[in-house]
Amino acid sequence: MEEKRRPVVAGRTLQRQINAKSALNRMRHDAVTISDIISELHLSRPAAGDIVAELVEDGWAVESTPDSPSLMGRPAKTYQFNTNQGFIMGVDVGAHTLRIQICNLNGQPLAEHEASLAPTQSRDERLETTFREIDTLLQGMDIPPAAIWSIGVASPGVLREGTVTFYGGPDMPGWVGTDLAAAFEQKYDTAVQVEGDSALGALGEVWQSNSPVDEDLVFILAGYRVGLGIVMDGRLVRGYRGAAGLIGEMPELGWSRLDSYPDIKTMLDTEGDIQEQTDLDKYCSDLALGIRAIALTLDPRIIVIGGGIGQGGPAIIRRLTENLAGKLVSDPILRTSELGDRGVLHGAVKLALIDIDQTVFDVDIPASKAR
Amino acid sequence: MEEKRRPVVAGRTLQRQINAKSALNRMRHDAVTISDIISELHLSRPAAGDIVAELVEDGWAVESTPDSPSLMGRPAKTYQFNTNQGFIMGVDVGAHTLRIQICNLNGQPLAEHEASLAPTQSRDERLETTFREIDTLLQGMDIPPAAIWSIGVASPGVLREGTVTFYGGPDMPGWVGTDLAAAFEQKYDTAVQVEGDSALGALGEVWQSNSPVDEDLVFILAGYRVGLGIVMDGRLVRGYRGAAGLIGEMPELGWSRLDSYPDIKTMLDTEGDIQEQTDLDKYCSDLALGIRAIALTLDPRIIVIGGGIGQGGPAIIRRLTENLAGKLVSDPILRTSELGDRGVLHGAVKLALIDIDQTVFDVDIPASKAR
Repeated sequence: MEEKRRPVVAGRTLQRQINAKSALNRMRHDAVTISDIISELHLSRPAAGDIVAELVEDGWAVESTPDSPSLMGRPAKTYQFNTNQGFIMGVDVGAHTLRIQICNLNGQPLAEHEASLAPTQSRDERLETTFREIDTLLQGMDIPPAAIWSIGVASPGVLREGTVTFYGGPDMPGWVGTDLAAAFEQKYDTAVQVEGDSALGALGEVWQSNSPVDEDLVFILAGYRVGLGIVMDGRLVRGYRGAAGLIGEMPELGWSRLDSYPDIKTMLDTEGDIQEQTDLDKYCSDLALGIRAIALTLDPRIIVIGGGIGQGGPAIIRRLTENLAGKLVSDPILRTSELGDRGVLHGAVKLALIDIDQTVFDVDIPASKAR
Repeated sequence: MEEKRRPVVAGRTLQRQINAKSALNRMRHDAVTISDIISELHLSRPAAGDIVAELVEDGWAVESTPDSPSLMGRPAKTYQFNTNQGFIMGVDVGAHTLRIQICNLNGQPLAEHEASLAPTQSRDERLETTFREIDTLLQGMDIPPAAIWSIGVASPGVLREGTVTFYGGPDMPGWVGTDLAAAFEQKYDTAVQVEGDSALGALGEVWQSNSPVDEDLVFILAGYRVGLGIVMDGRLVRGYRGAAGLIGEMPELGWSRLDSYPDIKTMLDTEGDIQEQTDLDKYCSDLALGIRAIALTLDPRIIVIGGGIGQGGPAIIRRLTENLAGKLVSDPILRTSELGDRGVLHGAVKLALIDIDQTVFDVDIPASKAR
């Protein structure tokens, strides 16, 4: 089934298959001419022509219009990766909110949808709502579920091999033990990657901010609950059992108190009000305690505050900076996310995109698959 | 100068140089025959013979005695890497103790020396004592300083580009600002690598316990002060400014109280005594607070307690386990180091060994050095 969903790039021999994948990679983000393929891949004109013709015939490539017409004679035909041959999807299943994004195979968003979830909803209800909202979105876009090549799913808690193994909050009854990967695979019969929401927030942040790959970044997902995602040297730190980033479970560090404050929107909207300002001050003081522990342990270059509280922007950064002054050894950049409370969703899309990169575009075809 | 100290493996062409390095790598830990070289490197008999002859002539290889005599006829000559052509050195400069180890080029210890340092000693006195002790040790072994190919140096505090940029303790006056790499390079005119003591403790632990390279391990150096070294996915986590592992600087987590307890030896020696036992209990309770923050943040597979307190063995592990019970989400292995208070020194040696591995044994000769 997966073969059908994500067809292998054509080619009778391994060398030809590698050439076809290289050509496809080359045309992924730019339009190229046959001459570009000839010179860059060191192929003969007939070989390059054959490969491009096959890619077009199999739906991998489409002829595109050249940006600027040639000055002399007939413009050379250009070809581009057919980004709509398949689709990828990111899904963020939270306690309160469900977010879905459908993208083309280059990760460019085509549609996004948000729906409310009740924190008390059971596991089955939550999955049912999730699938129903996804199906409605796909139907509206006229995309058959079979055209989804990869799905990235974000969930609160600790995820291990696609299953929720821990969730520290009072909500989401029955969520621990859910094999999210299996549920999505069964429903959509495609590749599914599942990861914790804070980790995906970090991944989304690195992706969307175009950070260099060797970036050290921690992402603090501060909404109803607080989580931590860590990227060191450009790699997601998941921990040995997928349980990295759970510093919020330590009462001494203040994060466990954060869900006792008024809701974030109220705190931000009424920032001028004396009483509410005090709440925001206290919230930031508690948040800063955990940030200090993280900054002293990991010395990240950048600390990004995302989730609901991240939308407080300067009001939050000012308070955190005051709380951290003189208490850190290193001097990390502290900023709020520009992705609002959609950072995790971006990370979920990126997870699916990485899967596509690895399975469809990787030119290193293992010997065992070469036959 | 470095060319003279660490001669490039001979060879008239790049291919020949690569073959010579490959042969040297092959004989690094085992004795090999010319026939082994022929079959493993796919070389002709004359080519293999020439390469081995050259390696012997230049001092890189020595003829060795075969382990078991051949059953038929004359035994084939075997060759081995000349591990004593040069030497490496690890140095651990602490507030209270100086440790030095001299090893052969395979990292096998040839001599070790320990000396007391006064915590109040000035920077210049400390360096002077260090160099004097090293020189005495080398003289006693009849090793000229010029035969030292690489030095790994451990220091408390935060190290950046070989310089101490932060030290949180009250001791070691003038140590911050010391360019340790430059001081050692100037004195011994050889390659010097410098790193923080806790990070090197972690590195030494991974090395000596033969952990797999993808190990997640944190090393807690608990002596007069407490530090943290992190290895994730087999890589040392240094932080963006080299300041990872400083969670001990956070008063809320108890580690800053640890230097107010009776000295560790007293606490361990008098474990049975009611009053002293209470001190050890309190010490472990404070230590556990920081361990919880680390375990929740990073979810390491293994947590190793090293330094002075690590010598408490089961007495320490039992107390820490009691303090951690029910307070972690994941279930890390908690153990004391078998390296005693010499774990950091092992890490310093390993740092020098990695340097030798990369510069002498790496067969990937960059194109720019090929001529």
